[in-house]
Amino acid sequence: MSGKIICIGLGPGDPELMSVKAHRHLTNARRVAFFRKAGARGVARRLVEGLLRPDAAEIPMEYPVTTEIPLSDPRYNAALADFYERWTAELSRLSEKEDVVVLCEGDPFFYGSFMHLYARLPRERVEVVPGIPGMAGCWAATGLPITWGDDILTVLPATLPEEDLTRRIRDTDALVVMKIGRNLPRLRAALKAAGRADQAWLVEHGTMAEERVRMLSEVEGPVPYFSIVLVHGQGRRP
Amino acid sequence: MSGKIICIGLGPGDPELMSVKAHRHLTNARRVAFFRKAGARGVARRLVEGLLRPDAAEIPMEYPVTTEIPLSDPRYNAALADFYERWTAELSRLSEKEDVVVLCEGDPFFYGSFMHLYARLPRERVEVVPGIPGMAGCWAATGLPITWGDDILTVLPATLPEEDLTRRIRDTDALVVMKIGRNLPRLRAALKAAGRADQAWLVEHGTMAEERVRMLSEVEGPVPYFSIVLVHGQGRRP
Repeated sequence: MSGKIICIGLGPGDPELMSVKAHRHLTNARRVAFFRKAGARGVARRLVEGLLRPDAAEIPMEYPVTTEIPLSDPRYNAALADFYERWTAELSRLSEKEDVVVLCEGDPFFYGSFMHLYARLPRERVEVVPGIPGMAGCWAATGLPITWGDDILTVLPATLPEEDLTRRIRDTDALVVMKIGRNLPRLRAALKAAGRADQAWLVEHGTMAEERVRMLSEVEGPVPYFSIVLVHGQGRRP
Repeated sequence: MSGKIICIGLGPGDPELMSVKAHRHLTNARRVAFFRKAGARGVARRLVEGLLRPDAAEIPMEYPVTTEIPLSDPRYNAALADFYERWTAELSRLSEKEDVVVLCEGDPFFYGSFMHLYARLPRERVEVVPGIPGMAGCWAATGLPITWGDDILTVLPATLPEEDLTRRIRDTDALVVMKIGRNLPRLRAALKAAGRADQAWLVEHGTMAEERVRMLSEVEGPVPYFSIVLVHGQGRRP
């Protein structure tokens, strides 16, 4: 075994925000793997358009279709576990002779999908290159610092029950909420109950060409699952 | 006015973890400014050793000595405000004809000092390039993902009172604590009271040559202010 599985964090979206190290691995890679929804191009793959070697072999790892299975159903976990097992074995095999570079949006260790392969692989076969998390690209896009002085930052998934969201939003200085999409109405109610609806921003595609930055109060209609809601801290500033 | 003030996030420490964009600005810069303690080399400056143009002018911005003034004393804030005012004016002047690149460890908008200049400058004169936050370099150094599934992440300054630390540590899945140094004994007591002392890691100089990663329970003696304590989330993993 001489090859490794190298997962590179691509950062928030702008290809220039990838690290020098990730860029080096990417542009040298002869095997490039990435997750994508069945039938889609793949978000991570789109971010590296024009950066791959012409002879790079592309290895799409297509998620099983689980939209009809509720998250709480054991079949949901079973389908995903099976998928991750299969690709763990496949990447192990593919990397026996040569490195395989796996693309990951943002930072791989921060809610990344690659972790499910990582947890199944022998540690010495894997290397992980950190990236700028998507949320950092989003707060950069607002043009305002997220935390000052002794601010507390809380990162929440919008999937939480409304009362949990409310309590935690009330109890933090700075706030990042991930996984928005269809959870937006509940999150909006929680922000309002916590008295912070007017301070909230919604960022879609932070640092990408399609970037869109708005106060949440101006947002109508549906928003992407991967958009991010932010409330900036107001801590000590001499 | 044709020049800009460009603040680049240097990331957690390893120079290869700087973004491609930050690296481009840095290696082209003819004027490079950075904060440092009076008399010291400067942490940010050390990170870019060997990367500057030979003809780059270096502009150290030396913090006023405030170690004898308590944080709550108005003179503390006044000394810092005066310092930031002075450098805002000076960088404005220096950037009139040519860009000035300002170095910032980690991500500038995440507890960065540059924000205090940024808040005083006209928005159109400034550009901020995000970086990998120091905490992301630290969790990468532990070799373990920080958040999974629907984990909640809380980022706390260790300067908080012990009862606040305890309550918040008990109430989160994943935890990052910054500004450790002399606050370690209080933080340790809070982690113990919250029942999580055995899960905590201490990372010093994550991703740098001097990187040191230990379980907190194995740490004796003083630790640097800029070390980070982590507790990893244990969320859903198919």
